[in-house]
Amino acid sequence: MTDPIEFWFDFGSGYAYFAQLEIARIERETGCDVLWRPFMLGTAFKVTGAQGLSSTPMKGDYARRDWQRLAAMKGVSFAPPASHPVTALAPSRIFYGLEERDRAMANRFAASCFKHYYGEGLDITTDDVLLRCLEDAGAPAEALSFGQDERIKALLKSRSEEALAKGVFGSPYFLWRGEPFWGADRIAMLIDWVATHRA
Amino acid sequence: MTDPIEFWFDFGSGYAYFAQLEIARIERETGCDVLWRPFMLGTAFKVTGAQGLSSTPMKGDYARRDWQRLAAMKGVSFAPPASHPVTALAPSRIFYGLEERDRAMANRFAASCFKHYYGEGLDITTDDVLLRCLEDAGAPAEALSFGQDERIKALLKSRSEEALAKGVFGSPYFLWRGEPFWGADRIAMLIDWVATHRA
Repeated sequence: MTDPIEFWFDFGSGYAYFAQLEIARIERETGCDVLWRPFMLGTAFKVTGAQGLSSTPMKGDYARRDWQRLAAMKGVSFAPPASHPVTALAPSRIFYGLEERDRAMANRFAASCFKHYYGEGLDITTDDVLLRCLEDAGAPAEALSFGQDERIKALLKSRSEEALAKGVFGSPYFLWRGEPFWGADRIAMLIDWVATHRA
Repeated sequence: MTDPIEFWFDFGSGYAYFAQLEIARIERETGCDVLWRPFMLGTAFKVTGAQGLSSTPMKGDYARRDWQRLAAMKGVSFAPPASHPVTALAPSRIFYGLEERDRAMANRFAASCFKHYYGEGLDITTDDVLLRCLEDAGAPAEALSFGQDERIKALLKSRSEEALAKGVFGSPYFLWRGEPFWGADRIAMLIDWVATHRA
């Protein structure tokens, strides 16, 4: 049993969408479990002084073009809702609420959120879309209430603080035994690194 | 004869160092000439609100670690001088002064600047190091004076403005027929793109 790979991401991050498409491959090729870790990227931005890609001059235009190019290469669609990027508090909280009971169910929920948001342009901060994601994951509709649960709110907050403490300043961001890999384009390096350092 | 690939970079950018190690391979695999295009990245940072990687909290620590990891993977050393990142006005100006006379000589000069700065920790804003880079390139020592030449100063300024007008917000940044590729880790995508779109 090797150490798990932590996969830190914000649901509102376009590059996180592409990274999560590769999670099954990462697990297969490394033999490590991947621990999904949603967090609020805005917390890190307050420290680095960065802003969201979409609203950064020039970089935002590049990212929109790059996302479409990546989508075409991977044969998926990339069509987030007009409200993109949303502040994904509700789905992140629901994830952690589910994870306490059933990690696999929580992972399915997160993957469904990505699929509906980026693949179908549905706003995952609205109750009806979240209910659909819960249904996809085989989770009970009551889990929707995790979005307003004070204990779960505090849990998400502590996860965002954990991310910051670990130096996570972007999304997606992978960590394995403390070694950091930032960006969907660092997945090949992550896989190589685990293969050469796991012994 | 296909269109050239523009390679925009700032000599003070660590990732540009790794990208320029791949230029010969890019030319070989695409059949395109690569046009070296030094510019002052600070001009773009004024628009995007970004700051240099080295001075960005968390991101700077990550970059320093990532550079060493990349250097180990590629079997090169990465040891810029203590003054890193320098404001590389002089080598950028000298490059354009040389390029007007002999493009291959200018390219050799740029490669030598990268080698001395990142490989050997020498400050390429000082006259003695610049003289060594000129010698490596087979260029006359008098070319040092391009660093103070008003016409060449204006030429570099116009190149930085050209970069901005083309949406170049980072370093390294490649452009081919207007298609942008940002980052040393986008070189494989650039090569694939040219192969599939050159017809």
